[in-house]
Amino acid sequence: MESKVYLYDTTLRDGTQGEGISLSVEDKIKIALRLDQFGIDFIEGGWPGSNPKDMAFFERIREIPLSHAKVTAFGSTCRPNVAAAEDDNLLALIASGVKAAAIFGKSWDLHVTDALKTTLEENLRMVADSVTFLKQNGMTTLFLAEHFFDGYKANPRYALRVLEAAEEAGADWIVLCDTNGGSLPTEIYDIVKSVKESLRTPLGIHPHNDSGVAVANALAAIQAGAQQVQGTINGIGERCGNVNLISVIPNLQLKLGYQCVSSEQLQELTQLSRYVAEIANMTLPNNQPFVGHSAFAHKGGIHVSAVMRDPKTYEHIEPQNIGNIRRVLVSELAGQSNLLAKMEELEIDLSLEREEARQIIASIKEREFQGYQYEGAEASLTLMLLEAAGKMKNLFTLDSFKILMEKASVRAITSEATVKLSINGETVHTAADGNGPVNALDNAMRKALENYFPCIAKMHLADYKVRVLDENGATAAKVRVLIESSYNGEKWSTVGVSTNVIEASWEALADSIRYLLWKEGCETSDIQPSTEARVGIVNH
Amino acid sequence: MESKVYLYDTTLRDGTQGEGISLSVEDKIKIALRLDQFGIDFIEGGWPGSNPKDMAFFERIREIPLSHAKVTAFGSTCRPNVAAAEDDNLLALIASGVKAAAIFGKSWDLHVTDALKTTLEENLRMVADSVTFLKQNGMTTLFLAEHFFDGYKANPRYALRVLEAAEEAGADWIVLCDTNGGSLPTEIYDIVKSVKESLRTPLGIHPHNDSGVAVANALAAIQAGAQQVQGTINGIGERCGNVNLISVIPNLQLKLGYQCVSSEQLQELTQLSRYVAEIANMTLPNNQPFVGHSAFAHKGGIHVSAVMRDPKTYEHIEPQNIGNIRRVLVSELAGQSNLLAKMEELEIDLSLEREEARQIIASIKEREFQGYQYEGAEASLTLMLLEAAGKMKNLFTLDSFKILMEKASVRAITSEATVKLSINGETVHTAADGNGPVNALDNAMRKALENYFPCIAKMHLADYKVRVLDENGATAAKVRVLIESSYNGEKWSTVGVSTNVIEASWEALADSIRYLLWKEGCETSDIQPSTEARVGIVNH
Repeated sequence: MESKVYLYDTTLRDGTQGEGISLSVEDKIKIALRLDQFGIDFIEGGWPGSNPKDMAFFERIREIPLSHAKVTAFGSTCRPNVAAAEDDNLLALIASGVKAAAIFGKSWDLHVTDALKTTLEENLRMVADSVTFLKQNGMTTLFLAEHFFDGYKANPRYALRVLEAAEEAGADWIVLCDTNGGSLPTEIYDIVKSVKESLRTPLGIHPHNDSGVAVANALAAIQAGAQQVQGTINGIGERCGNVNLISVIPNLQLKLGYQCVSSEQLQELTQLSRYVAEIANMTLPNNQPFVGHSAFAHKGGIHVSAVMRDPKTYEHIEPQNIGNIRRVLVSELAGQSNLLAKMEELEIDLSLEREEARQIIASIKEREFQGYQYEGAEASLTLMLLEAAGKMKNLFTLDSFKILMEKASVRAITSEATVKLSINGETVHTAADGNGPVNALDNAMRKALENYFPCIAKMHLADYKVRVLDENGATAAKVRVLIESSYNGEKWSTVGVSTNVIEASWEALADSIRYLLWKEGCETSDIQPSTEARVGIVNH
Repeated sequence: MESKVYLYDTTLRDGTQGEGISLSVEDKIKIALRLDQFGIDFIEGGWPGSNPKDMAFFERIREIPLSHAKVTAFGSTCRPNVAAAEDDNLLALIASGVKAAAIFGKSWDLHVTDALKTTLEENLRMVADSVTFLKQNGMTTLFLAEHFFDGYKANPRYALRVLEAAEEAGADWIVLCDTNGGSLPTEIYDIVKSVKESLRTPLGIHPHNDSGVAVANALAAIQAGAQQVQGTINGIGERCGNVNLISVIPNLQLKLGYQCVSSEQLQELTQLSRYVAEIANMTLPNNQPFVGHSAFAHKGGIHVSAVMRDPKTYEHIEPQNIGNIRRVLVSELAGQSNLLAKMEELEIDLSLEREEARQIIASIKEREFQGYQYEGAEASLTLMLLEAAGKMKNLFTLDSFKILMEKASVRAITSEATVKLSINGETVHTAADGNGPVNALDNAMRKALENYFPCIAKMHLADYKVRVLDENGATAAKVRVLIESSYNGEKWSTVGVSTNVIEASWEALADSIRYLLWKEGCETSDIQPSTEARVGIVNH
């Protein structure tokens, strides 16, 4: 009998408190959909009462049907001496239009008297009234006891009275927060255990990582009887971050026998971690437990041969259970099977030619080593496979481009690009201005190609991301550019890598156009430039 | 009564197994001296039997008097069917000339029979003979039981017999290794506790972080009776790393009441962490517990006003105890209290002039709306505040710059920048190539300024991040550039925003240089260009 542990994700709210983390409404929607798909139970979307951007998220998300997750709005209890029904913050939770609310309240007497500047009794009234009001409005209500562990250590009787007030008012969950992240696992275990004995309401744990033991604290709380963990993807969050759900989930499910998500969903763990990092534009450490690039990397010699004979000699879990891969010379089986599936999808008959397939895998690994990442750029991967299969037509090639930028002290910077392309033996030479160097290059390429391939006019660039790969190289570092294109409602992504952001952008732009031409089945014989286009042709 | 916990650092050996970590002999000497100064008890210098570079380290270090630490050489027990006195690996330990040796041996029956391919009895002989031989040669001897926890779970009787063999042979320490990093704190606690009951020899713990709970595992082992922790600075090491001593030490000393180093030494913790990161050329995560740049950074408005009144409301320890500092971040989420705290820190006396302070806040909000983010760019914020207070000198201004990039189909892209700056009424006009447009611009600016302000040569760009703000604008979108600079071990960050990545980079670069000149107290009267610099001056 496996017992269920509920997963509450606060990447979109507490996570965005992390230094340097900033998510647009569109980013938040994308992440929410991915969390839902992964099997997260509660997705905390934001604090509608504090932030208009968060309200915009709730307006968007309530139009989108989710398969499993409950979107949750965050807020606080009502203010001192204000009735719950008249408190703007609580009214905003209801106005958010979602069905679950998480409200925090004080449980540390010091905070009640010194920060809130009210009486201990009034604080109990605020908790009870706020929970009652949300329940009356039909919301699943989670009460988050802020600073609970510090409060309990200082005044256990009062800290418990706060929880009892929430329980009596009908809270669906009571969540114990280690707000300052200062508690250690043994304390967490003992305190959760004793709270569990006093309450009927299911308990959650909300740890922070200031002591470097947040994952252990989450596990200790669950082992002491809590049934919900609140954390973030990759442990982002204020100061040292919230607990990292990416580490908590496999520990609970693979080691302690609790049930969080399905085995199939668990196999998406590594992808989920990388997807959120990509959207939040953060660099994941290679040594991140479970999902890091180095987490199952074996250096040569004794380890490798032992691992090949029996993986459990040097691996604590099987990497495929969480969608990561072992990095040893010969055993990239997981990678290979993905690739074979992709080829099948493209009707490329390479699957029988083991040697050719092996070569493609080797060249993909080589490019990944250089910094390419095909997980987020399947269109570029498709082009590579098509080329390897001899199925790719080269409809245009680059002869050269130049970009000139000028900035005088008071005037805005100007950017101009010239490109020279060969299209069906003809050289097209043209120029365009742009809003920055990449935009100028994009405009010039479109100008050169549109008259030959009119479909390009309907392709839009939907997203453009630049990622610095080797941060120690600073302005001379390698960058990865990811471009997302949309065309008739379909979307695809392409990638380029270089120490030069312009060259990386050019690669991704060119792939994006090539992919479109392949999809649309364009042929060289289609090439019928209009007379306007011929104006640009200087050489044929 | 505080009990002493011994610190064993293996940064120089296990740490260098981490992906991308490489230390020269000189680097290792520098780190060893720093570890000694900090109060580390054992410094594991390398594996003399496996690696000539490690032997070179021992030759150097034994000439240098250390104040406290015992330098330790690492190796394995003798091989099967070889006498200890004839085993090259053990002889190399003695030849290293240091007074302590740590040898690992198998304690998991599976590994003995499957990896070593010998009998369980022969393995016990190898352990006993090896320890005896080292003790006969006058060495402090630590026996490291590899895979101990997995071995104990599989066959507790045999795992214990291995430890007993080491104890009977006279080992000074027996160290229990969680080699695969798969164990959880409760298991570690229970197993260490039961081993402690069977042995007299003091125990050590050697955890790895594959489950994300290595710090908690170290604490659990100490709480169960172990007296030594083996780990690395910043948790570097193979796969997910060794346990991070930087987190273990303050938890043991400030929270659990154990004694590791003196209070004065503990105040060097943050510096130690950053020093080792600098030498190892690794980027420390800002959210690293205890010592991270963000570890005591406060963002939310409510948090900030509470922390200003009473730090323990949102801080688990006092940052000065470990040599870190409190930082107040400014962002859209925060109110005025953050900014006033920042001004106080800068000794800018605007706090009384409410109207002026309000104007600054309004202009920051306006710039944040445009996409600037000051929480990650405190140096840019400082410059804004200094300017508003009339405390900023303008030591140089931009007249113009141009950047030209050229790409021909087969050749790599080239980037060249020219800049024209006014410095003290003189115009400096110069040019430089670069690895990409931003690097070319950076190089040209440095070339123009270095001879006037030589400190610029010691400033390095440590990090460069590009964030696309309005992704729907794709290549015409607004971007935010964040630059992190380092100078004599100090770091600061600056920001620029534009639809043009080059213009945004220029802003951040210029701010970074301005901040340095302000910090260094440069004056216009300092300007004394060398004759070489005058070659670049075209107009004065």
